[in-house]
Amino acid sequence: MYELVNGGVCAAKGFRAGGIHCGIRKNRTKNDLSLIVSEVPATAAAVYTTNKVKGAPLEVTRKHLENHRARAVICNSGNANTCNSNGIEIAEQMSVLLADGMGIDADDVVVASTGVIGQPLNPEPIAAGIPQLIAALDENGSREAALGIMTTDTKVKEIAVSFQISGKECKIGGIAKGSGMIHPNMATMLVFITTDAAISDTLLQKALSGDIQNTFNMVSIDGDTSTNDMVCVLANGMAENPCICEENGDFEIFMKALNTVTVGLCRMIAGDGEGATKLLECKVRGAKDAQTAKCVAKSVICSSLTKAAMFGADANWGRILCAIGYSGADVDVTKIDVSFASDKGTILVCKDGAGVDFSEEKAKEILLEEEINILIELNDGGAAATAWGCDLTYDYVKINGDYRT
Amino acid sequence: MYELVNGGVCAAKGFRAGGIHCGIRKNRTKNDLSLIVSEVPATAAAVYTTNKVKGAPLEVTRKHLENHRARAVICNSGNANTCNSNGIEIAEQMSVLLADGMGIDADDVVVASTGVIGQPLNPEPIAAGIPQLIAALDENGSREAALGIMTTDTKVKEIAVSFQISGKECKIGGIAKGSGMIHPNMATMLVFITTDAAISDTLLQKALSGDIQNTFNMVSIDGDTSTNDMVCVLANGMAENPCICEENGDFEIFMKALNTVTVGLCRMIAGDGEGATKLLECKVRGAKDAQTAKCVAKSVICSSLTKAAMFGADANWGRILCAIGYSGADVDVTKIDVSFASDKGTILVCKDGAGVDFSEEKAKEILLEEEINILIELNDGGAAATAWGCDLTYDYVKINGDYRT
Repeated sequence: MYELVNGGVCAAKGFRAGGIHCGIRKNRTKNDLSLIVSEVPATAAAVYTTNKVKGAPLEVTRKHLENHRARAVICNSGNANTCNSNGIEIAEQMSVLLADGMGIDADDVVVASTGVIGQPLNPEPIAAGIPQLIAALDENGSREAALGIMTTDTKVKEIAVSFQISGKECKIGGIAKGSGMIHPNMATMLVFITTDAAISDTLLQKALSGDIQNTFNMVSIDGDTSTNDMVCVLANGMAENPCICEENGDFEIFMKALNTVTVGLCRMIAGDGEGATKLLECKVRGAKDAQTAKCVAKSVICSSLTKAAMFGADANWGRILCAIGYSGADVDVTKIDVSFASDKGTILVCKDGAGVDFSEEKAKEILLEEEINILIELNDGGAAATAWGCDLTYDYVKINGDYRT
Repeated sequence: MYELVNGGVCAAKGFRAGGIHCGIRKNRTKNDLSLIVSEVPATAAAVYTTNKVKGAPLEVTRKHLENHRARAVICNSGNANTCNSNGIEIAEQMSVLLADGMGIDADDVVVASTGVIGQPLNPEPIAAGIPQLIAALDENGSREAALGIMTTDTKVKEIAVSFQISGKECKIGGIAKGSGMIHPNMATMLVFITTDAAISDTLLQKALSGDIQNTFNMVSIDGDTSTNDMVCVLANGMAENPCICEENGDFEIFMKALNTVTVGLCRMIAGDGEGATKLLECKVRGAKDAQTAKCVAKSVICSSLTKAAMFGADANWGRILCAIGYSGADVDVTKIDVSFASDKGTILVCKDGAGVDFSEEKAKEILLEEEINILIELNDGGAAATAWGCDLTYDYVKINGDYRT
C-alpha cells in the first residue's frame, strides 16, 4: 500500500529542487546551498527546536508560516546563522533575494541554516549564488538539495513513498540532514518533506506534530539538542485528491505515509550519526503506558556507556539495566528481560532483571553487525516504543574535537 | 582555618584502614578489597544512588544503618554485585564474615561493591581474604584502601582537613572512586568519609544530604547514573569536642570542613574521569536563583559536544550556548556572557549571547591546560553554581568499548 519510490522531495507532483556550491563551505566539491520549490503555493506546517537558543532562520520561518503557506525552502550549510547579532537580518535577506529572483512573496519562503554556531555569516556568497541556485532547479534535483544541507553527514538522506487517497495516487518524500548535535525535543534536525496530497493546514500540522513524538523525538546521537532543528512539510495538493479536511480514513492513510517517510529518515539519521559504525534500534515492549516505554527506550539509546559497548560489540547488558534504572520510568526491575538481535540472530542476556548464561561468542557475532536491535521486555503491560541511535566511537571524538577548523 | 593534612580516611583519630588483593580482579598488582574501621562505634550517615536498579550492597547497608551506627566499611572492586540473583545473600555474608573476624556486630558494617554489573560474584576470594584484610589494617592505610576501591580510576583519590571545634582539633578525611558511569543524582560514586568530630546522627545526615546537592550531584563524567553510588560518613567523636547537636556555629564549621573534603574529591573524580585529559569546572554566576544556576552548569558540563571541543582545545563557545539553551533553565539568551579561563589567562568569547572578536591563538593556549574554567555570566540575578566534569576523549571510547574483557 505504501510503495517506496525514487525522487525524494521531487517525487511528489509539482516539486523541483536543486543544490549548488556558493562558497560558504571551503570545500568546493560540497554543495552548501539548497532549494526546494513548489509549482503552486503549498500548505505548510513545521515544528522547531525547543532549545531556547534558536537559529535566526527559525524565527524568520516561523513568522513566514503564520499564514500556513509556502512555495520555497532555501537552506545553506556551513554556518548555522545562530548567535549572530545580524542573524535575523541575513535570514530575511535570503528570503527576499530568493523571492525576487523567483517572482514570489518573501513570506512564502522557508529559510534554514546549518553548521557552526556563532560565526558571522557572510551573506554575499548566498546573494551571488541565488540566480545559479534557481537555474539549478530540476525535477530530479532532490539529491543535489540533500547534498547541500549536509554537514558532517556521510550519507545522503532521502526517501519517498507513493500511496492512494480516494483513488488518486499521492506521493510524499523527504530529505534530512543529521549527524551531530542530535537529540531532538519536540522537533528535530533539518528535515524537509514534500507531498502532492491535498490536506488542510490544521490537519497537516496535526499530522506532523503527532508524528514527530514517535519518530524524530525518539532519535538521539549525542544528547545535544540543536539550536537549528526544524521539520517542515509542504503539501501542494497537485495529486487532486479530495482535500483531507477531517480526521477520517484518508487522514489515517496520510499519517501512515508520513510515518513511513519519517521513520525512514530517523533510521538514516541515527545510522549516520557522527562517527557511527552501527545503527541502534531500541524496542521496548510490555510497558504499562507509552510514556514509560518511550522513557526507557530513549534512556538506553542515550547512554554513553551502552553506546561505547555497542561500538566494541560487547554484550554488556548491565549498562542497559543501569540506563533503565536511571531513566526515571516506574518499572519493576525484577521483571525485565533484555535481548540483543541482528541479522545474525537473537540472544537473551538478562531474564527477570538478572543475568542468564549465554554464549559470548554468539553475542559477539550478533553485535558485530551494522544494525543492532536492543529488545527490552518490561512484562508490565501492553505499551511499546522504539528509539534510534548509534554507537559512540573514536571518530565522534575526532570529528568534534576540532569541528571548526 | 581548614588546613589540608595527610592521612585520608585515617587522618581522624581512631580510624585505621587497609586494602589487599584477594583475587576478584585478575591483575594481582591491584587491590580489590578494602576496609576502614573505627576504634569505637561511630555515628553514620549515607546517601545512595537514585537509580532504580540498585546494587545489592546498598540495600544491605541501608538496613544496617537504620540505627545510624557503624564501625567498619568493607568494599570490593572488580564486581558491582548488582543484578545478581544471590546479591543480597553475598553482601550479607561479607558483613557477617568481617564482623565475626573483628568481634563486632554485622549490623555495624557498611558494605559496598564496584565493578561490572550482572556478573556472578564469587564470594570465596572475599571470605578467604578477610583475615588478611583485617591484619592489613594500619593507621597509615588510607592509600591502600583507596587503591582497593578503584576500577578504571588512574589516580588515588584521598583528602583530609583539620579544623577546630570549641578549641578541640578535629579532622575529616575521605577516599573516593570515580572514573565512569558518573552522573550522580541525589548521591554519588563510592565515597567514604571519616571524622573524629562528635555530631548527632540527625545533623550528620543533614550535613551530608545538604552538601551533596552542591558537590557530588554537580559532577558528571558521562551522564550515566550508576547503580552502586554511595557516600557514607562515619563520625566517631574521638576528638572530644562538645557534641554538635544543634545547628549552631560548630555545625557551620563542620559543614565547611565537610565541604572542603567533598569539593576536593569532586575535583579529583572529575579530573580523573574515564579517558579524561582535562578537568572542566563550569562556574555559572548572575542567575536568578540557585536552581537555574545549577541547571545551566550541569547542562554544559554534560554536553558531549562541549566535552569533545575541550579535548580538542577548540573555543567552540556556540556549543556552550546551545547546551544552556536546551538545559530547560529560564534564561535570557541575549544577556549571556561566556569566557574560558585557565592558568594561562581568561578570554571572553561571547557577550550578550553573540560572538565577540577574540584571539583564537590565545584561546588555544588557555584551553591546552589541564584545568579549564568555563565561566558563564547570566546577568540576571545573584545566584551561582559550580559543576565539574571532564573532556570526552578517544580513551573514553576505548575503555568502554570493551570494559569486560
